[in-house]
Amino acid sequence: MTLNKDTNILVVGLGLMGGSYARALTKRGHSVFAITNERASLDFALREGIIAGGADFVDEGLVSRAGLIVFALYPHVFLDWVKEYGHLIRPGTLVTDVTGVKTEVVYRVQDMLPPGVEFIAAHPMAGREKYGVENSDERIFENANYIVTPTDKNTPEAVALCEQLGRELGFSRISRLTPEAHDDMIGFLSQLTHCIAICLMNCNDSPHLEDYTGDSFRDLTRIARINDEMWSELFLINRKALLRHMDSFAACFQGFRDMLETGDREGMRAAMRHSTARRALFDKDKPKP
Amino acid sequence: MTLNKDTNILVVGLGLMGGSYARALTKRGHSVFAITNERASLDFALREGIIAGGADFVDEGLVSRAGLIVFALYPHVFLDWVKEYGHLIRPGTLVTDVTGVKTEVVYRVQDMLPPGVEFIAAHPMAGREKYGVENSDERIFENANYIVTPTDKNTPEAVALCEQLGRELGFSRISRLTPEAHDDMIGFLSQLTHCIAICLMNCNDSPHLEDYTGDSFRDLTRIARINDEMWSELFLINRKALLRHMDSFAACFQGFRDMLETGDREGMRAAMRHSTARRALFDKDKPKP
Repeated sequence: MTLNKDTNILVVGLGLMGGSYARALTKRGHSVFAITNERASLDFALREGIIAGGADFVDEGLVSRAGLIVFALYPHVFLDWVKEYGHLIRPGTLVTDVTGVKTEVVYRVQDMLPPGVEFIAAHPMAGREKYGVENSDERIFENANYIVTPTDKNTPEAVALCEQLGRELGFSRISRLTPEAHDDMIGFLSQLTHCIAICLMNCNDSPHLEDYTGDSFRDLTRIARINDEMWSELFLINRKALLRHMDSFAACFQGFRDMLETGDREGMRAAMRHSTARRALFDKDKPKP
Repeated sequence: MTLNKDTNILVVGLGLMGGSYARALTKRGHSVFAITNERASLDFALREGIIAGGADFVDEGLVSRAGLIVFALYPHVFLDWVKEYGHLIRPGTLVTDVTGVKTEVVYRVQDMLPPGVEFIAAHPMAGREKYGVENSDERIFENANYIVTPTDKNTPEAVALCEQLGRELGFSRISRLTPEAHDDMIGFLSQLTHCIAICLMNCNDSPHLEDYTGDSFRDLTRIARINDEMWSELFLINRKALLRHMDSFAACFQGFRDMLETGDREGMRAAMRHSTARRALFDKDKPKP
């Protein structure tokens, strides 16, 4: 199991993420093929030279010739695909994905794949507010995190190759988490932040607010522009962890509100000093150990 | 009452905002002087050529010679200053400010100033996460909003001159609001967003979260790095409006949480589509009418 210039890479799903993978890997000299059910996406990718070839149907030849398959589909579509076509994948093929939730996906995919086909899951923590292969861009991986989520069924070789893939894609930080730890983390860092942005955007319909908006409000609501089909699915799949984080945030927010109401200035200041100190840890330009 | 190159401008308070005003106005060819109680700030501003002169005490000559005085102080310091030294300001002088809350400040200042001294309040909606004249920078006004908040006591000439000041500072959008409408707007767009950022930053103390953080979480917590002395004062002065906005947000957030818990996918998607449509109004590059 190796990832080199002879490895035949198949990307299944040519949206923003699949397209960005294809761009990055093609630029690195790999042979990248794609399967998508959107003829327009395939034509675009061929015309732009993002892929060497592909099909707008499940082409058995493309699947069986692949040495590495990357699934870039919505979670339920990914699960359905593996159930229906997983048997086409030849033993020895490495399978990975880009799915944003793991616990409810990884074990089921590993159970469904034929013997000799290893699935090593990964989450590229990158994105844009726009969708589709037309907006794909390998630069979204710069300064971003790539998380591999192995299970007991994974081999060290597959984990190493998946990490190599992350490096070739251009991610600046590669790390490992269990599927459960990943989902807890993503429930907080990504899903909770999206819930907050949606509600901040929706809780005040006064007209003309946009005339006075500064960067703070813009920053906090940037991700309120959201793909409702994809994110509602991700939220529901990770419901338990997300609800826990939403409740923690709501309790903290209520506590701050009560300090304001009772005029507890010192309590508010202590909370602000804590948030200031915590935030310093998250600076992008903080030197990494 | 005019603002031209002969106008003697006095900035009282040489922090980030006073320093940025001084830089911008000096660059535009005005004669800018400053009063601050920090000797080091004064020396820095003189050395950098940001001001033509100044004092680290309330210099009666500087005050009486000023044609325009800009107060860039914390609200309670501003009120105390006017109470103690307001009588030094000569009739015909125009007074303005940079205070981030208006209702509790504007009327009291107008009542305290001597006859013939007009106070026209303004809020430059700009800032940085760093403080002090050393971090001042007139570029913070680019693409930012400048809001004039006149009362019944203000003359059209003073309002026009205050708006001219905003243009000379380099603000891209100048508008007018009543003090009450300003405080309601700022309670939502600025203060509520800061409360949210603080609580998001504080509600999960798990170690190593920073290793996985993407841009979403960074964007939503950028302003969690906050000047606790200034913001606790601003929150408390605007307590009533801020509490109302906090409660609206909390109710919206709870509603979204309940949709998640009950698996109301269509309800969540409708909220996401609403936030997506609303957010488009707030795009920075949206053409202004």
